[in-house]
Amino acid sequence: MRILVVNPNTTASMTATIAESASRAAHSSTEIIPVTSAMGPVSIEGYYDEAFAVPGLLAEIAKGEKAGVDAAIIACFDDTGLDAARVLADIPVIGICEAALATTAFIAQRFTVVTTMERSRLPLEHLVYRYGMAGRCKVRAADIPVLSLEDPASNAGERLRAEISIALQEDRAEAIILGCAGMADLTAELRAEFGVPVVDGVAAAVKQAEALVALGLSTAKRGAYASPVSKPYSGLLEAFAPDTLRAS
Amino acid sequence: MRILVVNPNTTASMTATIAESASRAAHSSTEIIPVTSAMGPVSIEGYYDEAFAVPGLLAEIAKGEKAGVDAAIIACFDDTGLDAARVLADIPVIGICEAALATTAFIAQRFTVVTTMERSRLPLEHLVYRYGMAGRCKVRAADIPVLSLEDPASNAGERLRAEISIALQEDRAEAIILGCAGMADLTAELRAEFGVPVVDGVAAAVKQAEALVALGLSTAKRGAYASPVSKPYSGLLEAFAPDTLRAS
Amino acid sequence: MRILVVNPNTTASMTATIAESASRAAHSSTEIIPVTSAMGPVSIEGYYDEAFAVPGLLAEIAKGEKAGVDAAIIACFDDTGLDAARVLADIPVIGICEAALATTAFIAQRFTVVTTMERSRLPLEHLVYRYGMAGRCKVRAADIPVLSLEDPASNAGERLRAEISIALQEDRAEAIILGCAGMADLTAELRAEFGVPVVDGVAAAVKQAEALVALGLSTAKRGAYASPVSKPYSGLLEAFAPDTLRAS
Amino acid sequence: MRILVVNPNTTASMTATIAESASRAAHSSTEIIPVTSAMGPVSIEGYYDEAFAVPGLLAEIAKGEKAGVDAAIIACFDDTGLDAARVLADIPVIGICEAALATTAFIAQRFTVVTTMERSRLPLEHLVYRYGMAGRCKVRAADIPVLSLEDPASNAGERLRAEISIALQEDRAEAIILGCAGMADLTAELRAEFGVPVVDGVAAAVKQAEALVALGLSTAKRGAYASPVSKPYSGLLEAFAPDTLRAS
Amino acid sequence: MRILVVNPNTTASMTATIAESASRAAHSSTEIIPVTSAMGPVSIEGYYDEAFAVPGLLAEIAKGEKAGVDAAIIACFDDTGLDAARVLADIPVIGICEAALATTAFIAQRFTVVTTMERSRLPLEHLVYRYGMAGRCKVRAADIPVLSLEDPASNAGERLRAEISIALQEDRAEAIILGCAGMADLTAELRAEFGVPVVDGVAAAVKQAEALVALGLSTAKRGAYASPVSKPYSGLLEAFAPDTLRAS
Amino acid sequence: MRILVVNPNTTASMTATIAESASRAAHSSTEIIPVTSAMGPVSIEGYYDEAFAVPGLLAEIAKGEKAGVDAAIIACFDDTGLDAARVLADIPVIGICEAALATTAFIAQRFTVVTTMERSRLPLEHLVYRYGMAGRCKVRAADIPVLSLEDPASNAGERLRAEISIALQEDRAEAIILGCAGMADLTAELRAEFGVPVVDGVAAAVKQAEALVALGLSTAKRGAYASPVSKPYSGLLEAFAPDTLRAS
Repeated sequence: MRILVVNPNTTASMTATIAESASRAAHSSTEIIPVTSAMGPVSIEGYYDEAFAVPGLLAEIAKGEKAGVDAAIIACFDDTGLDAARVLADIPVIGICEAALATTAFIAQRFTVVTTMERSRLPLEHLVYRYGMAGRCKVRAADIPVLSLEDPASNAGERLRAEISIALQEDRAEAIILGCAGMADLTAELRAEFGVPVVDGVAAAVKQAEALVALGLSTAKRGAYASPVSKPYSGLLEAFAPDTLRAS
Repeated sequence: MRILVVNPNTTASMTATIAESASRAAHSSTEIIPVTSAMGPVSIEGYYDEAFAVPGLLAEIAKGEKAGVDAAIIACFDDTGLDAARVLADIPVIGICEAALATTAFIAQRFTVVTTMERSRLPLEHLVYRYGMAGRCKVRAADIPVLSLEDPASNAGERLRAEISIALQEDRAEAIILGCAGMADLTAELRAEFGVPVVDGVAAAVKQAEALVALGLSTAKRGAYASPVSKPYSGLLEAFAPDTLRAS
Repeated sequence: MRILVVNPNTTASMTATIAESASRAAHSSTEIIPVTSAMGPVSIEGYYDEAFAVPGLLAEIAKGEKAGVDAAIIACFDDTGLDAARVLADIPVIGICEAALATTAFIAQRFTVVTTMERSRLPLEHLVYRYGMAGRCKVRAADIPVLSLEDPASNAGERLRAEISIALQEDRAEAIILGCAGMADLTAELRAEFGVPVVDGVAAAVKQAEALVALGLSTAKRGAYASPVSKPYSGLLEAFAPDTLRAS
Repeated sequence: MRILVVNPNTTASMTATIAESASRAAHSSTEIIPVTSAMGPVSIEGYYDEAFAVPGLLAEIAKGEKAGVDAAIIACFDDTGLDAARVLADIPVIGICEAALATTAFIAQRFTVVTTMERSRLPLEHLVYRYGMAGRCKVRAADIPVLSLEDPASNAGERLRAEISIALQEDRAEAIILGCAGMADLTAELRAEFGVPVVDGVAAAVKQAEALVALGLSTAKRGAYASPVSKPYSGLLEAFAPDTLRAS
Repeated sequence: MRILVVNPNTTASMTATIAESASRAAHSSTEIIPVTSAMGPVSIEGYYDEAFAVPGLLAEIAKGEKAGVDAAIIACFDDTGLDAARVLADIPVIGICEAALATTAFIAQRFTVVTTMERSRLPLEHLVYRYGMAGRCKVRAADIPVLSLEDPASNAGERLRAEISIALQEDRAEAIILGCAGMADLTAELRAEFGVPVVDGVAAAVKQAEALVALGLSTAKRGAYASPVSKPYSGLLEAFAPDTLRAS
Repeated sequence: MRILVVNPNTTASMTATIAESASRAAHSSTEIIPVTSAMGPVSIEGYYDEAFAVPGLLAEIAKGEKAGVDAAIIACFDDTGLDAARVLADIPVIGICEAALATTAFIAQRFTVVTTMERSRLPLEHLVYRYGMAGRCKVRAADIPVLSLEDPASNAGERLRAEISIALQEDRAEAIILGCAGMADLTAELRAEFGVPVVDGVAAAVKQAEALVALGLSTAKRGAYASPVSKPYSGLLEAFAPDTLRAS
């Protein structure tokens, strides 16, 4: 089984963190294929960056599908472009936010996502609602830039821990979800430190992707996820017209 | 007062329909500035097209704001790229779906959106939920391609009318919302024909934009709509990095 | 265009404050016609006063409609008698609470209504729910009598400001709605002071009324808003029987 | 124990039907005191009539409380003026809609209210939501005028039965609630006919009133139900100022 | 009228407390028949104990029904086994949580349940949701073991009072519900002490049971509460097969 | 990895069907350990049977945990005793309903559960709500006894197919979930027949159990799932006291 893991921002060092977490979670018979988006923002912080991360992401998924991968993972916690990807691809596509929420729901009744910046809080709350977890999952922001997670000199880790402590006390959280792909490498130490389940979306998504492939399940192509309608695209984005992208 | 009306697909004839509806709704002292997106799909039918309509749309909004327009309208019923546009712009930005729903809510307790294709139904239902109207507004699809609305030889009008009849009978709808910018020119005749309020989102959005400008209100720049974070974008989309786009 | 603005309490000085805000918001071609209810309570503080403000309010709306106004506004933040008014009138009728919420929803994701007395908080929370904003709008009370807003010697302004500060910090509010028609004159200074959008329902309602009239839309007369059934009323309220009131 | 049962419309023959149902339900040691409102509409059909039924209703409740009754019931299925009555009175006040819903919820998981006119359906749906039953209770209208229930020559009974049949088949209803005080005398025969529990709100309210009195419970006078604020009322409604009404 | 009150734990001293509250609430013509479950846990603290309290509880209800009681009450605040009991019995069955919530909803808009242990909080929140009260009722835990309520040397009363104080201040609670059958004897003194309605579920359930019996209403035997399907049970629980239990 | 799969009814032939589906889904390195409950009902059809399936189920989970299994699956679609099992066990415990819903949510926006008997529909709807899927998942019953699935002479398959057809047409279902463990063997043929994803909860639960074990995650032991409180149980169920059961 081969699983494509797309980092939809263009920062290769973050892809490395993601790839490590994905590989650790994968079964020994699963091959993880990490890729970094070739265009767009260096990090995804809020709605604006998210919009421009989608074309590069979809290009990688189209390329991966043509190369024969069995499933694709979108490794950004706002599940960037997930709906469009499911329209495009015939293989299953998993977002790390939805995978983290679904996985945590099997082991805890109440839990909290701790993300990076305040501006990402509301979009994540919308996802939490959409995935049916609004009654049991809160979202908190540690108020740290995404790339500060890569900077050992920053106080990002400290602020993240402070927010986790608040979540455990004030939210009645029984488990913590790390709300950014770039936090994946902190999972083990935070579990040890806080003594509660700490869930990384990248690892969770790998297991969900393996599950779907093993079960022979893929996106239902009825309704909103039916394959894209053939039509011309123009200008800078001409190459992304559905037929063109899939043929390229 | 000058209001930019962006058609986020690349079909100029549809922009003409939109512009006519916008101008009819505008106060005589308001100038409507219609533009067609310079890149992307010829029509927006579902999640995939929507994703690729966003860059062209945001480019037009940035351009309009620099040229001094007072407000911007996104003239596609799935409110394409609305959140990203609100992050980008300091002027108010209005989607035609949200404008239609908010306006209709003042005159009816229950109403139905009739849109084009089945694949757009679920995304619109998500918008209806997000705008707080899930308890009183249903979504129906007439199962017609967007561009067939421009084709006098198609049976699009007939299917639209059939779906409106069903909505009035089965949904207890007291008013009808036309769920596609390309239907704007049918408003008056459908009102006459069915004897109920029929709401066109383009016209509604013009009045909401005029209202916000007159009231001196614009997007609150706290939380999810704070201005975009400065950062490099790369590849094909390099020119869309927030600072670059606004400086261009 | 002529818009009737009814103050449903009997305090003429508050009507003056309302009229000033309405006129400031109105287009230069719109005539604002302010009236004070001829019967009922001097201020509306909770469910009991609200019940007795309705007859006087409806009498003014019937009179205004007969005199040819194009729309009516109910200028009390609990949207007193709005449903009954929509049954009675053929012209559009707008409540200032619903107008404020609908308008603010175009510029902010989360916002807070600050009202006067604690006893009005729950009725406003019910309105917020009914208008579909429960997930994004909180209600707070500054614990000040309505008429203290008219008294320069009271500390009403101070308490209002204190509650706004709390809303901005604790509710993640991005904008503030003034939850009493009598606060309309404070809008500009509070905007300047807090640096966030501050919305006055009277002004918002004027723009929504102008919008509906311009769009040729009025209350759908199907279902709950169908015209009242002809029937005799007796005793003190005899003159309010639907046919009698409209004929008077 | 003495329980006041107010018919908030002015039709005495309907009060007789209500009184009979109340007496049948009451414990032998309970005295039922039926009264007909002295002013307002002859029947309550929708929002407009409801607004004008409130003053007469509240006058009767004030009079009854002064005369020493232990509890009051509002015998109209739209729970006319219930919130205002709870502000006014220190004794418990019960609406027949809320009593019917609460009682039925102990014996069925899903049930349907069958009311009279289509225009009452939406107001009842709002009550069903407010009382927390939206997920399990539907509302249907038999499309019959309220007073036709008193007319043996009308086909009201037939239409009511037809709507009950539909509710049992299409709504998965396990029990039926009669959605108008004027239907109370049909309870026994409809139970026999359809073989499911049929609940009359008047009878249910009597038992709930008896329960509250026996338990020594009455309306909590904090928040929205705190006693009305002393203030002058003017014009036709002068006598309804809280202090005046209670002193009269 | 004879009402069975089953204490589903095996602690007879708690049954005595329950019986006293039930008798105080019952009409003089009602006979209260208190029973203690013959098998299972000495107290019910969370999901595990609850599961093992059900067989003993159902055995008592079957026995009571055969002996001709008119209704049954399950006197544990998690409404242990209520659904199964309604399937089994033809007489009405009432849980004390649902009775307390329904009763309090007639006298307060917002209220708080104060229960014993933190582990019971979430199950009670699920009940509050299921009974339609999630928008107006909070749940708090005083963090006291159930049986400490019986121990005069414990500080259970003190902790309970502390939590009630917090509920009145922070939850805007207008009334308090005692969230454990073992608290029934504190009702009167807590009412006096806090000056707000304090509701005991045992007493409330007695009145609701009396109401249903007087109204001639019992569980609707359609859908989920249809009588159990005849089938063999095996092993330790053989005697609980529906036919066997009812025949025993 | 060793996964215990408990059939909580006592019908061994159904355990065989379940075991086959579980083994087919399991990774080649996973050992499936199927067990049949030693006590209780031969099939679980509604609330009553469910209550008596719990003790036998928990006994098997306790036994399995002591024998060192890594995770446990409850193979009945009403997720019998799941909360109690999570309190009892330190290993992860998965219900087949929750696993099916969570898995399907990755591949479809709208889907329908088709279960056996009408009386199971409402309990499943409650689960669907609790798992956050109420907005996108409907429940239908084919009106077939559970054990008829084992009987080749019954028309169970035919009725199941008829209900699936209705779900695809009327519910806008994009995928189907088989709402009974005994349907697991039909998955492949129904997929082929209807051309949409068909999900069997047993297989889905195996993958979710494998995922949790691989990720090193188990039930959070805070709040409602904290380990059971030590206390004596008496009578027939004495051996199920938490300490006794785990020590046995």
